[in-house]
Amino acid sequence: MTTDAPFRPIARAPRGFQDRRAAAIRQERRILSAVAGVYESFGFEELETGAFEYADALGKFLPDADRPNEGVFALQDDDEQWMALRYDLTAPLARFAAEHWDSLPKPFRRYAFGPVWRNEKPGPGRDRQFIQCDADTVGSARPQADAEIIAMAVAGYAAAGLPADAYLLKINNRKLLNGLLTAAGVENAAQKLAVLRAVDKLDRLGADGVAALLGEGRRDESGAFTKGAQLAAGAIASVLAFVDARRDTRLATLDRLAQVIGGSAEGDEGLGELAQIGEALTGLGVGEAMAVFDPAVVRGLEYYTGAVFEAELTAPTLNERGETVRFGSVGGGGRYDDLVARFTGERTPATGFSFGVSRLAAALNASGAATAPAVARGPVVVIAFDAARMNDYFALAAELRAAGVAAEVYLGASGMRAQMKYADRRLSPAAVILGEDEIAAGTVTIKDLDLGRALASGVADNSAWRADRPGQITAPRAGWVEAVRAIVGRLG
Amino acid sequence: MTTDAPFRPIARAPRGFQDRRAAAIRQERRILSAVAGVYESFGFEELETGAFEYADALGKFLPDADRPNEGVFALQDDDEQWMALRYDLTAPLARFAAEHWDSLPKPFRRYAFGPVWRNEKPGPGRDRQFIQCDADTVGSARPQADAEIIAMAVAGYAAAGLPADAYLLKINNRKLLNGLLTAAGVENAAQKLAVLRAVDKLDRLGADGVAALLGEGRRDESGAFTKGAQLAAGAIASVLAFVDARRDTRLATLDRLAQVIGGSAEGDEGLGELAQIGEALTGLGVGEAMAVFDPAVVRGLEYYTGAVFEAELTAPTLNERGETVRFGSVGGGGRYDDLVARFTGERTPATGFSFGVSRLAAALNASGAATAPAVARGPVVVIAFDAARMNDYFALAAELRAAGVAAEVYLGASGMRAQMKYADRRLSPAAVILGEDEIAAGTVTIKDLDLGRALASGVADNSAWRADRPGQITAPRAGWVEAVRAIVGRLG
Repeated sequence: MTTDAPFRPIARAPRGFQDRRAAAIRQERRILSAVAGVYESFGFEELETGAFEYADALGKFLPDADRPNEGVFALQDDDEQWMALRYDLTAPLARFAAEHWDSLPKPFRRYAFGPVWRNEKPGPGRDRQFIQCDADTVGSARPQADAEIIAMAVAGYAAAGLPADAYLLKINNRKLLNGLLTAAGVENAAQKLAVLRAVDKLDRLGADGVAALLGEGRRDESGAFTKGAQLAAGAIASVLAFVDARRDTRLATLDRLAQVIGGSAEGDEGLGELAQIGEALTGLGVGEAMAVFDPAVVRGLEYYTGAVFEAELTAPTLNERGETVRFGSVGGGGRYDDLVARFTGERTPATGFSFGVSRLAAALNASGAATAPAVARGPVVVIAFDAARMNDYFALAAELRAAGVAAEVYLGASGMRAQMKYADRRLSPAAVILGEDEIAAGTVTIKDLDLGRALASGVADNSAWRADRPGQITAPRAGWVEAVRAIVGRLG
Repeated sequence: MTTDAPFRPIARAPRGFQDRRAAAIRQERRILSAVAGVYESFGFEELETGAFEYADALGKFLPDADRPNEGVFALQDDDEQWMALRYDLTAPLARFAAEHWDSLPKPFRRYAFGPVWRNEKPGPGRDRQFIQCDADTVGSARPQADAEIIAMAVAGYAAAGLPADAYLLKINNRKLLNGLLTAAGVENAAQKLAVLRAVDKLDRLGADGVAALLGEGRRDESGAFTKGAQLAAGAIASVLAFVDARRDTRLATLDRLAQVIGGSAEGDEGLGELAQIGEALTGLGVGEAMAVFDPAVVRGLEYYTGAVFEAELTAPTLNERGETVRFGSVGGGGRYDDLVARFTGERTPATGFSFGVSRLAAALNASGAATAPAVARGPVVVIAFDAARMNDYFALAAELRAAGVAAEVYLGASGMRAQMKYADRRLSPAAVILGEDEIAAGTVTIKDLDLGRALASGVADNSAWRADRPGQITAPRAGWVEAVRAIVGRLG
């Protein structure tokens, strides 16, 4: 390569950013449209905010660092202010609500969907850009607002096509564990956070592992040691009894919780809220099989202040190697009464639910519930033979479109064979031929490409199909569009 | 303020980024959905790419600069590579097409819509994030591909609701002016670019101003001097004759152009392409009143290599002060045969059309063609009196939703008056009251809020309306949903 060679960048998408083709886009849009319809029927209003927020509004501003880079994409604007791409839809909502609080109807109920960005190491199923869909009520402290958000999430999943028996909504309240720890004499915030982190590992480590992490610490199989929360034995036993308090019904769980949380004011408050959530859930038609109280649910985010929710797939799912795997969470949320106060200084109760759309799409596919076709069909292709006849071909395509059939004239430079192959690769249902013979006879020839593919793949049996479905028909100009529609209507 | 005071960021959106409420989102989504339907009917397949591209793929990489910042938002990834937010949808398409060329059906026809970002000084009507909608055909050198893109843009505008007589599609070909300049002995690329820039100012400066910019240069009213393209007098006359070559019909313009472009090979090529575009436009049903050849059309982007298109509003529009203004462009495009070759080294013909969605929405509003309601209606609000009755209220809201009526239970902490005010601010059609009297009588009281607003604003006359439209009705539980539907059906 000489130094005179022009610079040729490599054509590649940045790491962790996906190009998405029609079938995937369509499935996600169908989900969003169904869920948006449900959220609007509950009186939630759509809101869009820009991709950027000022870094201080995201709570990610590090005054001593050159760049705020804790998981966000940040850059400095030309007025020296740091901006970052939003990493969720909650922080922009808190900013918006704080900015416009006086002029908003209260409670302010909004839903939103759109991309969020995370500056993390990408991996399989772990993109740096993905679409979230959120609904939040800002300005209501009522536990009924939490219950309504849960009921709406259930209705949204149903509209998206997720079967009711494929997942379970688990509900907890941060105030319970907080109250229990206070009653046990644990006041230190860092220690409380360590307890939350330990409980969050219950699924993976079991009760013994969590007990170790609540106490001195735990050495894993590799020999690495994780320092524990340093709780005393009595407190450890209380926490373990707490996370094990889930019973068969919401009421039975509440009863058990009342026995184990130890009577602190905060714990009682949490219990009272859960009781009201449970009663409202019943009124909202969310049954015991759909939503349970589960004290083991933590949710990672530190900003939750009360109720937390997590939707988990329960149906066993298969991975690409056909192995049964635990799919895990398909959404969650909770109450965050302090986020708006970061701006205004005034406590503003808020609660919401969020899910990732491509993760829900994956859950629908994994649980066999996806109803959308996995491929995007191509248009009917009008074959182009003769440059002097292009307007005749355009007229055929226009006739099809007027009849509601997607159609295009082949506009490349290749011959008949390549054109048929093009139509086949587009998964077109049919190709249309208007040659000199057809023009002379006043006809159009139509090739049934779905049949061709079915025969080629062995799905269709040549002898059986030929009688009622010939691979190629010649129709008079008067009735040809109906003949194409009949083929398109079969859809393979 | 003491140093102990907590840090309170100011709640504000970054400069040039808009928050968008439901009515605006809905209008833009209606446009996008209508246009997408048209583009799919022409056989175009949707594609989404990520927000970021590597800076070298955008052609904005400056090896000597600390940061590539020519109008893009750029940052360095943790592997030291510069990435930038896309500033249009064409560069990501060129990258995608180059990356996947071997496996794509060819020609590759795709449409896309989504936000683009420009790191420019924001101002009124000039956001740093806005939604573009593009359709492109990659891999066809045929002028019919340009004509089809134009015909599809026309069909897209019609579907979006833009009246055919509100705008005009102007078509030109870069090869004409290039050929003319070559014939006049102008070979220097910078000089050719200066000529393009001068011609682009025809609307603003008139023929005399352009003539000055083609020659020595021009001093404006402020006294500032712009250096000219330094053309000789004969070349200036040729360029002025060229930009004045538009005639009443496409054929007449082609005839006039043949006289003025001076017979260079490139000019003849451009003429031949325009002639074929004109013939195909006729075949595609795009009449003379809809699309004209106009040699004065330039289009700013330097990457165009042949045909260029510009859609301009012709109907006079009013600005906010009620003054008649020229709205200008609502979209455009052209042929760019070199963009994919930046990556692959192989010339890959491509042509496309792009419009900004909020600009089209503004054009629809300005030309009086907008049909979407300018406000978003709120849900029916079930008034909450008694915390012990919440489940009864939830049941009412559920009944309404089951009947297809958006409904919510008020979940704030305020009393009756504030709740009615809330429903009014949400532009709710009705409020529903279930008090102890109603429960005892087995009825529901329904307040017609649209009527209340109409009376308050003087739109409705109290005496005339009362007879057939009482402001408040009490309905039995058996028929109350129908009574609400009757009010909602009136829509104010």
